[in-house]
Amino acid sequence: MKQPGYMDIVIAAARRAADAGEVPVAAAVVDADGNIVAVAENRMQRDANATHHAEILALNAAMAAVGKSRLDGFDLWVSLEPCTMCAGAIAHARIRRLYFAATDIKGGAVESGVRFFNAATCHHKPDIYGGIQAAAAEQLLTAFFAGRRAP
Amino acid sequence: MKQPGYMDIVIAAARRAADAGEVPVAAAVVDADGNIVAVAENRMQRDANATHHAEILALNAAMAAVGKSRLDGFDLWVSLEPCTMCAGAIAHARIRRLYFAATDIKGGAVESGVRFFNAATCHHKPDIYGGIQAAAAEQLLTAFFAGRRAP
Repeated sequence: MKQPGYMDIVIAAARRAADAGEVPVAAAVVDADGNIVAVAENRMQRDANATHHAEILALNAAMAAVGKSRLDGFDLWVSLEPCTMCAGAIAHARIRRLYFAATDIKGGAVESGVRFFNAATCHHKPDIYGGIQAAAAEQLLTAFFAGRRAP
Repeated sequence: MKQPGYMDIVIAAARRAADAGEVPVAAAVVDADGNIVAVAENRMQRDANATHHAEILALNAAMAAVGKSRLDGFDLWVSLEPCTMCAGAIAHARIRRLYFAATDIKGGAVESGVRFFNAATCHHKPDIYGGIQAAAAEQLLTAFFAGRRAP
């Protein structure tokens, strides 16, 4: 039986966020040996905190788990292209590789918007792999917003 | 006797950060009635967390204090031009007015770098007032980095 991959685990966490009424986005931090050290869902509504995106929470949990402010050699997997805030946090955290699923043309900052990792004020650029299992992540987001528009 | 202004209070907090070995940056959130609801210093070293910039901590503390994820009508005072991560957080938090002291051409994202508040992917732009008591904030930063280079 096929083992679930990192993005499968992230998308399952995003589904739990949707079930809790949150925009379905989740993220995981994986160490250089392939161990998942943190998984987090978007918690903006539950925490009443506009900065509690999945990426920020996953980075914070990983830093706490390893006791370091920089995650050199660690990878971040996320179900949606990171926004400007999260792209900045990813650079500060020195993430090695960034894997994301769906593109976010309205709010993204990797391939979209300010394309922060290509800016002169970005001091660390991860290797970037976009579009991984994008259809599953997009379907979750589309279903969530369609549900919110329904009466 | 002249009362200390908001930026005086922020610069005093930045000085405390320097005394603790942190890059001296601090921030305060002020409500629509002029009450300070949060003051925070940069704690990246003390917390071993690369995302613990003063602005993020001040926004988080203010959201917790008022129990809301968005700080409509609140102002942020900060001793250094916010970076890309913090500019993104300021937009997510719906800060009304952003007052900052020193400019940061290497890492800033307001007047410098990606100038995020002018981007199409920025969905809330505060009123922006830069250069307030900039000399005092710059002097703190210059002294801090000079001290770190000393033997």
